[in-house]
Amino acid sequence: MGSLKQRKTIRKYQQKDIPVDLLNDLLETAFRASTVGNMQTYSVVVTRDADRKGKLAPAHFNQPMVTAAPVVLTFCIDLNRFSKWCRQRQAEPGYNNFEWFVTGAVDALLAAQTFCVAAEEKGLGICYLGTTTYNPHLIIEALELPELVFPITTVTVGWPAEDPAQVDRLPLEAVVHEEVYHDYTPEDIDRLYAYKESLPENRQYVTENSKATLAQVFTDVRYTKKDAEAMSELLWNIMKKQGF
Amino acid sequence: MGSLKQRKTIRKYQQKDIPVDLLNDLLETAFRASTVGNMQTYSVVVTRDADRKGKLAPAHFNQPMVTAAPVVLTFCIDLNRFSKWCRQRQAEPGYNNFEWFVTGAVDALLAAQTFCVAAEEKGLGICYLGTTTYNPHLIIEALELPELVFPITTVTVGWPAEDPAQVDRLPLEAVVHEEVYHDYTPEDIDRLYAYKESLPENRQYVTENSKATLAQVFTDVRYTKKDAEAMSELLWNIMKKQGF
Ligand SMILES: Cc1cc2nc3c(=O)[nH]c(=O)nc-3n(C[C@H](O)[C@H](O)[C@H](O)COP(=O)(O)O)c2cc1C
Ligand SMILES: Cc1cc2nc3c(=O)[nH]c(=O)nc-3n(C[C@H](O)[C@H](O)[C@H](O)COP(=O)(O)O)c2cc1C
Repeated sequence: MGSLKQRKTIRKYQQKDIPVDLLNDLLETAFRASTVGNMQTYSVVVTRDADRKGKLAPAHFNQPMVTAAPVVLTFCIDLNRFSKWCRQRQAEPGYNNFEWFVTGAVDALLAAQTFCVAAEEKGLGICYLGTTTYNPHLIIEALELPELVFPITTVTVGWPAEDPAQVDRLPLEAVVHEEVYHDYTPEDIDRLYAYKESLPENRQYVTENSKATLAQVFTDVRYTKKDAEAMSELLWNIMKKQGF
Repeated sequence: MGSLKQRKTIRKYQQKDIPVDLLNDLLETAFRASTVGNMQTYSVVVTRDADRKGKLAPAHFNQPMVTAAPVVLTFCIDLNRFSKWCRQRQAEPGYNNFEWFVTGAVDALLAAQTFCVAAEEKGLGICYLGTTTYNPHLIIEALELPELVFPITTVTVGWPAEDPAQVDRLPLEAVVHEEVYHDYTPEDIDRLYAYKESLPENRQYVTENSKATLAQVFTDVRYTKKDAEAMSELLWNIMKKQGF
């Protein structure tokens, strides 16, 4: 399991396919992850076809991994299959609501991450795409997702064609709380973010973006309040439209 | 990685501690999981204290794992730490909304599942507790979670004191869709659920609950529409109350 500690996101891939047997083996492994009541409230859409990748790409703001990776996996919350089974068995399902949207998301994400761990163990490289929750409507259209199915994350997968350095993480004490949540004093924040802020690559990032602090690169450039508010409304509306 | 395919949930634990170094090592491994913009929008609360477990137990409907496991981990969406950092660096955060609730959930769940994989690799057993999203208000109180922190899942961890048989999964073709979502015909549903319905343990489960079908055990006993609707409203309200 040493590989888990060495892992890093891979965004450049060789032009080389992933054998169907290997992919299926990894997916089978992924579906051994814990799942609520053993209900498997998720589905995975596998995209290999170049045309289909082309349809998906705009939904991901044309991030190059979508068309360059041999395989793109869209992990979806799926209460459609389970509800269909219920109806066909004289049982009235009650899974078209927010609680099951969240529970289905948990289920789908545990499977997604197990897939990634297993794939990386086999030498594959992966990249998550957060754009999935920015443009869910475009993905729903491209992948023809019916009611009670919702795309929660996307993973691009392929054989690595780059070997980037590992990026930093916050110290353990920044993230772990003993017994109760210990809220952060200004001194805590300074101490816990000092290493991140000191890194040459992060300092350069601030300069490149003509900002005064690293935090401003996040709030003013990468993840703005305005965008988040628009996306929140869209996400909520599309969730409702999908029947939750 | 063979162990991933053999895994199963463990609900009975030996009365034996998990060394602090081992736990910290597993948590550090967990935090190597992919994380949005390298922001680590999560926190983990570690519960070892018997009194604190006693406070958490009712939130989990007194499932015995909470008090029996040496360690209980509550994985939380956390936009508090990041927002505090922003404010302290002359940056105006915009993470108090639904988009970041969902993104924080993705982040927290990838870390949770990486923890579980690493823990199982070391011989530990884990159990997820879905009750976290049924009673978030009780967990927020027990763990003193501030605004912009939300408990999304709980994992109990310990050295296994049982060795249950693996439970079934749907066939791969039930969950995987090539290129687009292929909706299920009644014949598909019959075929895909046939194995699950044929299992002696599942047939017994139907009889024990005096139901006509396995699906009815889910809809009428385990996960009812009425409960889900009440929990959906609560979950939404508590999410709002925590500032999202
Ligand atoms: C979101 C979620 C919630 C769960 N909630 C509980 C729970 O409250 N109690 C419990 O005993 N198991 C819980 N589990 C574990 C599942 O019951 C278990 O993963 C499933 O039955 C499959 O068994 P396996 O993990 O041994 O393959 C949960 C799992 C998930 C993913
Ligand atoms: C929810 C989520 C969304 C992400 N979205 C993107 C994305 O859209 N594009 C991208 O290149 N990387 C994306 N990533 C990958 C992160 O940028 C990456 O995990 C982080 O920078 C840490 O790097 P590492 O995984 O190499 O340790 C995402 C990761 C997560 C968990």
